[in-house]
Amino acid sequence: MGKIKTKRHHKKVGKAPGSMIYTGHKSSKKLFIEAFDYNVERCIEKELNNVEEIFQINLSNSITWINLNGLNHVTEIEKLGKHFNLHPLVLEDIVSISQRPKIDEHEDYLFVVLKMLYNDKDDNIVSEQVSFILGTNYVLTFQESEGDVFDTVRERIRHGKGRVRTMKSDYLLYILMDAVVDHYFTIIETIGDKIEVFETDIFSGNVEKSINKDIQDLKREILRMRRAIFPLREVINRIEKHESELIQPKTKAFYRDIYDHLIQVSENLDIYREMIWSLMDMYMTSISNKMNEVMKVLTIMASIFIPLTFIAGIYGMNFDYIPELHYKHSYFILWGVMIVLFLGMLHYFKRKKWL
Amino acid sequence: MGKIKTKRHHKKVGKAPGSMIYTGHKSSKKLFIEAFDYNVERCIEKELNNVEEIFQINLSNSITWINLNGLNHVTEIEKLGKHFNLHPLVLEDIVSISQRPKIDEHEDYLFVVLKMLYNDKDDNIVSEQVSFILGTNYVLTFQESEGDVFDTVRERIRHGKGRVRTMKSDYLLYILMDAVVDHYFTIIETIGDKIEVFETDIFSGNVEKSINKDIQDLKREILRMRRAIFPLREVINRIEKHESELIQPKTKAFYRDIYDHLIQVSENLDIYREMIWSLMDMYMTSISNKMNEVMKVLTIMASIFIPLTFIAGIYGMNFDYIPELHYKHSYFILWGVMIVLFLGMLHYFKRKKWL
Amino acid sequence: MGKIKTKRHHKKVGKAPGSMIYTGHKSSKKLFIEAFDYNVERCIEKELNNVEEIFQINLSNSITWINLNGLNHVTEIEKLGKHFNLHPLVLEDIVSISQRPKIDEHEDYLFVVLKMLYNDKDDNIVSEQVSFILGTNYVLTFQESEGDVFDTVRERIRHGKGRVRTMKSDYLLYILMDAVVDHYFTIIETIGDKIEVFETDIFSGNVEKSINKDIQDLKREILRMRRAIFPLREVINRIEKHESELIQPKTKAFYRDIYDHLIQVSENLDIYREMIWSLMDMYMTSISNKMNEVMKVLTIMASIFIPLTFIAGIYGMNFDYIPELHYKHSYFILWGVMIVLFLGMLHYFKRKKWL
Amino acid sequence: MGKIKTKRHHKKVGKAPGSMIYTGHKSSKKLFIEAFDYNVERCIEKELNNVEEIFQINLSNSITWINLNGLNHVTEIEKLGKHFNLHPLVLEDIVSISQRPKIDEHEDYLFVVLKMLYNDKDDNIVSEQVSFILGTNYVLTFQESEGDVFDTVRERIRHGKGRVRTMKSDYLLYILMDAVVDHYFTIIETIGDKIEVFETDIFSGNVEKSINKDIQDLKREILRMRRAIFPLREVINRIEKHESELIQPKTKAFYRDIYDHLIQVSENLDIYREMIWSLMDMYMTSISNKMNEVMKVLTIMASIFIPLTFIAGIYGMNFDYIPELHYKHSYFILWGVMIVLFLGMLHYFKRKKWL
Amino acid sequence: MGKIKTKRHHKKVGKAPGSMIYTGHKSSKKLFIEAFDYNVERCIEKELNNVEEIFQINLSNSITWINLNGLNHVTEIEKLGKHFNLHPLVLEDIVSISQRPKIDEHEDYLFVVLKMLYNDKDDNIVSEQVSFILGTNYVLTFQESEGDVFDTVRERIRHGKGRVRTMKSDYLLYILMDAVVDHYFTIIETIGDKIEVFETDIFSGNVEKSINKDIQDLKREILRMRRAIFPLREVINRIEKHESELIQPKTKAFYRDIYDHLIQVSENLDIYREMIWSLMDMYMTSISNKMNEVMKVLTIMASIFIPLTFIAGIYGMNFDYIPELHYKHSYFILWGVMIVLFLGMLHYFKRKKWL
Repeated sequence: MGKIKTKRHHKKVGKAPGSMIYTGHKSSKKLFIEAFDYNVERCIEKELNNVEEIFQINLSNSITWINLNGLNHVTEIEKLGKHFNLHPLVLEDIVSISQRPKIDEHEDYLFVVLKMLYNDKDDNIVSEQVSFILGTNYVLTFQESEGDVFDTVRERIRHGKGRVRTMKSDYLLYILMDAVVDHYFTIIETIGDKIEVFETDIFSGNVEKSINKDIQDLKREILRMRRAIFPLREVINRIEKHESELIQPKTKAFYRDIYDHLIQVSENLDIYREMIWSLMDMYMTSISNKMNEVMKVLTIMASIFIPLTFIAGIYGMNFDYIPELHYKHSYFILWGVMIVLFLGMLHYFKRKKWL
Repeated sequence: MGKIKTKRHHKKVGKAPGSMIYTGHKSSKKLFIEAFDYNVERCIEKELNNVEEIFQINLSNSITWINLNGLNHVTEIEKLGKHFNLHPLVLEDIVSISQRPKIDEHEDYLFVVLKMLYNDKDDNIVSEQVSFILGTNYVLTFQESEGDVFDTVRERIRHGKGRVRTMKSDYLLYILMDAVVDHYFTIIETIGDKIEVFETDIFSGNVEKSINKDIQDLKREILRMRRAIFPLREVINRIEKHESELIQPKTKAFYRDIYDHLIQVSENLDIYREMIWSLMDMYMTSISNKMNEVMKVLTIMASIFIPLTFIAGIYGMNFDYIPELHYKHSYFILWGVMIVLFLGMLHYFKRKKWL
Repeated sequence: MGKIKTKRHHKKVGKAPGSMIYTGHKSSKKLFIEAFDYNVERCIEKELNNVEEIFQINLSNSITWINLNGLNHVTEIEKLGKHFNLHPLVLEDIVSISQRPKIDEHEDYLFVVLKMLYNDKDDNIVSEQVSFILGTNYVLTFQESEGDVFDTVRERIRHGKGRVRTMKSDYLLYILMDAVVDHYFTIIETIGDKIEVFETDIFSGNVEKSINKDIQDLKREILRMRRAIFPLREVINRIEKHESELIQPKTKAFYRDIYDHLIQVSENLDIYREMIWSLMDMYMTSISNKMNEVMKVLTIMASIFIPLTFIAGIYGMNFDYIPELHYKHSYFILWGVMIVLFLGMLHYFKRKKWL
Repeated sequence: MGKIKTKRHHKKVGKAPGSMIYTGHKSSKKLFIEAFDYNVERCIEKELNNVEEIFQINLSNSITWINLNGLNHVTEIEKLGKHFNLHPLVLEDIVSISQRPKIDEHEDYLFVVLKMLYNDKDDNIVSEQVSFILGTNYVLTFQESEGDVFDTVRERIRHGKGRVRTMKSDYLLYILMDAVVDHYFTIIETIGDKIEVFETDIFSGNVEKSINKDIQDLKREILRMRRAIFPLREVINRIEKHESELIQPKTKAFYRDIYDHLIQVSENLDIYREMIWSLMDMYMTSISNKMNEVMKVLTIMASIFIPLTFIAGIYGMNFDYIPELHYKHSYFILWGVMIVLFLGMLHYFKRKKWL
Repeated sequence: MGKIKTKRHHKKVGKAPGSMIYTGHKSSKKLFIEAFDYNVERCIEKELNNVEEIFQINLSNSITWINLNGLNHVTEIEKLGKHFNLHPLVLEDIVSISQRPKIDEHEDYLFVVLKMLYNDKDDNIVSEQVSFILGTNYVLTFQESEGDVFDTVRERIRHGKGRVRTMKSDYLLYILMDAVVDHYFTIIETIGDKIEVFETDIFSGNVEKSINKDIQDLKREILRMRRAIFPLREVINRIEKHESELIQPKTKAFYRDIYDHLIQVSENLDIYREMIWSLMDMYMTSISNKMNEVMKVLTIMASIFIPLTFIAGIYGMNFDYIPELHYKHSYFILWGVMIVLFLGMLHYFKRKKWL
């Protein structure tokens, strides 16, 4: 999931366009379908075992939300598609999980694809494709696997919290998408936290190779998130401007709200991106500073002891006639000279602020 | 306040849209409401204890400015909202303090959100969200806490300075926003001063690690200011182009003036941003120069004394037959040779401009 | 092929505009023409030896695809051009293989040029120009040499798989172009794999010069791919918006699908481009880290042994009176002192995390 | 003048909008007003002592140019403003010298602000704000101090050179602005010369710290010039498109000419900007090269003499039995070995091109 | 020529606008005029000595191309301008050779300026300004000196090759401009070749200072070419969209062809620009790698011989009691120890891949 999406496309090269091929990794997942059917007065919640059961739901007088998990069940999805009269390319897009967020406006339904982002147990960012079909009184959602960010939506439908039960399907689509976008903020925070950790690390002088790799990985993660989030703004924009009975004028203000949130997320992402560049700068500077420190130690040691060793070498020479060798105190005088030299050096390096 | 805004959003993930939740840190602030009611002839200034008192103010024949401090008092704000017939999403935005500057045009009022920036006691840049509601003859302002940049506005209303008492509510909104934008210049100056200090520091050879961190922090501060200021230009632009009785044609020139100021602030911010990049360049160069200096000291010391030590080593050898050892003056001749070598080296390094 | 295209233009400088000159390297290729003529009921597939045979094909009641390999056969192509009434500049563009992707809308045909990308045996990316002429019931394709990415298309026409036999020539053009774009994904994957290899290499400390060169080469390859792919988006866009009987409204959705794929490929390319920048960063950092390591070894060795050597030098001096020399255990004491110094140094470097 | 403009804004924070406050440094300048009144037949030139004298000039049948120096004389300017019926915000902008170039189109006059750039005695770039009011038969100009770039204009009016005396006030405005823009080229040249000097310096190995600072200063100067020049293009553009009797169709071609010049200046600025980046690159590279050189000297010295010293050390050992010590020629043989080693080393370094 | 253009503008600062001043360096060039007068049936080619001869050419029933070399002959050009009724600003632009490519649409003629680029004998890129006047049945061209890229055009007119003799003056302008643009490809190739040479140089480890300078020079050359080529696209675009009898609809396709070529040249320029950045990267890396190599040699030499020297120093001490000194084989044992140490070190460095 948290991997570059293109890989998956491979399975399809050379296939006829419009052929439905699941391009994800979760081929063994069980099909799981849940249905909510509600209006102001009542709310029925069902777990279904196969798509045929869906066809028995009466779609008039109520709003129906059908949530299908398990994109590997291609034939089931195809049946569903036929029932709701979906275009073959739409069905192909639903099961091909490397779509970028987009909206396709069809005559009697809207098709929206977006990326749901959430943290898994190990705090890795997981990206999962969710497709929405918005009809006059139903919303279909398609997900790869069961975990999702819609629990608060379920809660609200069940207990009639807020406006949801009094509104049309376009409002249902809105709260579903809002739930997805709200979770982007959680992800943004995770990234912010990681950046802070890196910063503390680098500032405290940690210049291990792995940190470089980790920073680059984070940079890439941000790149991927941008890819998931930036086109979504255009999608929301087009929903807002969509002219048909599917989207009622009074819900458009709500979509505007999602749009504002997306702008906020995008801006934060871009700020984090700049921060990462700064991190790399700090890291490079940190390495250079470290090198400077190493060089100073070497220079100080060498500068102090090489001249002293030279002096010792002088009086280790075996010339027949070296007058100093025979004075009584010359050994101690020499020590004195050496200590003076040593202290002079120390003083010099201190003045240069190397010590 | 001076922290990344997203953090605060967290509280709201999973909440129903349109639910009013205060997302700031100042939950214990007391509610403080002040009201100005004025026309050409008179000006009444009141401090109110609760929102109900507002409802008694007669809104005809005068311009009323109601300034509410304490966004944590959500229920009070809700009452106010109902009285002035504000949309639920507007109320949600007022108390959710991580909004980016924006304008929402409603049928009988304008809703404007912007960021007030000022320096606190420690010269840190503080950002506080201010929301404005512009009605036909009133302006409502909502702030998190009491301190603000509106004192000059109060003064002008009280004493009827300038045009304010002879103009409509759109002019009041203008002078309030103008006060906010005028303070951006003060902030810009603070940043300019900081950059100058960094520059002097780096140029005088200070390459401490902390300076790197500080520069990165400043860079981030500028990023945040951009986020507060850049969208505001669009807001002003839309006020200028707004077609309704709320904004009179003759006040539009004044909004144009704010727009010009914002362009100036933005340009300065971008210049400072480039300067920061230059600072980083200078810093990196400074480190490299320092390393160069260290290396030169090492090289000079080593290059001078290693050969001399070698010579001393030669005559410290214990061969039975080393003719030079037995000449009378060879010790002094050797000293001479060594001094010549030493001076030659010094000369060489001087010519290379290393000394 | 995988070389910068401009080189080939050279042959033409100074030639009259509109003169057909083959600008590629494959001048000795044999002419190879294949023709598919099909409708819902039947499909005839022929291999032709010269262009005259084409003129005998009855173009009514069926869709005809004529695929010509061997752009060096300029006169044959000219004959074909005359038969199908093609503009001289179109013919010039077909044989001049350094075209960038473009579309020319003529009265009764569309002329599309694009770049076919595929991996050769050595996994190098090969770029070959393919030109398409879309007429009311025929498609002409022109390629430099025989290998191409159209095998799946041939298969589908032969066996009537999918929709192709029931649709018009605009659908044929679509599946041909789709085949080309689908192969872009394979190329994208190759690039992704290469980047991964580089990353592993650099991370494991390989900083050989050649890797720098290879990365730069890959960067250039991506630049070239961008040049092949980015203008194609505009081409598809114009096909979608093309208003004539050549492109039927119902096939436009399919072209939209290609467009989406192109956006995906473009985004991936841009991500890879950023990754390459990161790679270069990692590489530079890797070199600096390596240098740091080298310096540490030097500093440790020098800092430990230079002072010890100095001490040994002291007691190698030949002064008449050095009291320590005559104490019985002084040699062993000195060893002790030296070992203590040695261990102290080790401890110091360990505390500095240099060991 | 050559300082960042924002600083001056400070004086105004908190003041009522529309209040005229001079924001420059030249508060003690004397007021100096000159007036040219001319038509095809005659030209009167006057020096005025106060603004009242202006009001006596008969504005019909001739073109009048009034040039006022001394923006600190706010009350005089206000009088002038009233006489010519100028908007309060216009007067505020005239004396507030931190305006960015702009045009305000009023009913019966045009207001243009731009930056005049010229070199002072020390070759520093000085920026001074000039405001223009274009009326039907007059042009007013407002400058901070006396020096300006309009001498050629004066000359042309006095002696009736060129078209000026036969044209309307819009042509006068044109030649005044043209004089300003022409001087931009001189400034551009100064910058080009500075860059050349830096380049020669760096190339000849000068890597003093001050050069880094100077380059950064130049970069900033270019940033400031961009700010003065780029918005001016939009100003000229709007003059060209202005639809009123103030700008006659036949003078528009002349404004187009200024526009072309501005594009040229802008492009040159951008090229110089890129050159400065290159300079920084060259500077960094220069430092690295210098370090390389230092390291080579150290490495050569150490690599040659450390092994030789080791050999000398060997035969300085006091073992009872070292056979070589007692051979007659061993001392000379050793010298031979050492010289061979020395030459071998030299050869090795030469082959590595370090010498 | 290959120098920054602004320099030449200097001569004109302070001159009245519209005054014709030649701004180039070739003031001593002789005037050279050639005229081609042709229609389908005939072609007359003349060399003229003065502009007066031009006025005798009958301009009806044929297309006339007058090519004037020697922009320093300002008065002659002025005469010509009067004869063809050209605007003074056009004449000024013709002789002012620092124009950027542009088109001026006048009532009965088009004025086009562009830059002709070609390699001189030393393979330097030379840029020369060429101005075109397109009238209903004539084209005037103005060049600084005699050499140009129009020989193929002359050939085609003389021998009636291609379409030229059957077409109008707009086609003549097209083939002239096409000749200029075709030469851009040659220049592009020269640049490509230079980059390849630099690459080989750097890769083979050449890090001389001069290469840095040369790369920066090339970068600048590309910047200048961009300036010559990018605005030309806009010029061609406007010719294509020009609505008058001067440009016939059927020639517009040909201009479109030039446009495509310009896009290709521009793209190649941008790719080369990126390549130059890569070159700089490679150069920097190369320097760092070289430094690494130097450091390794130093570290290896020092790390091996400093400890050995220390050991030798130990046994050079003069303590009365050093037991090892008196063992018979200790000298040889010591050699053994040293050799083991030496080999151990070698092994260590080999394992670190430093050898």
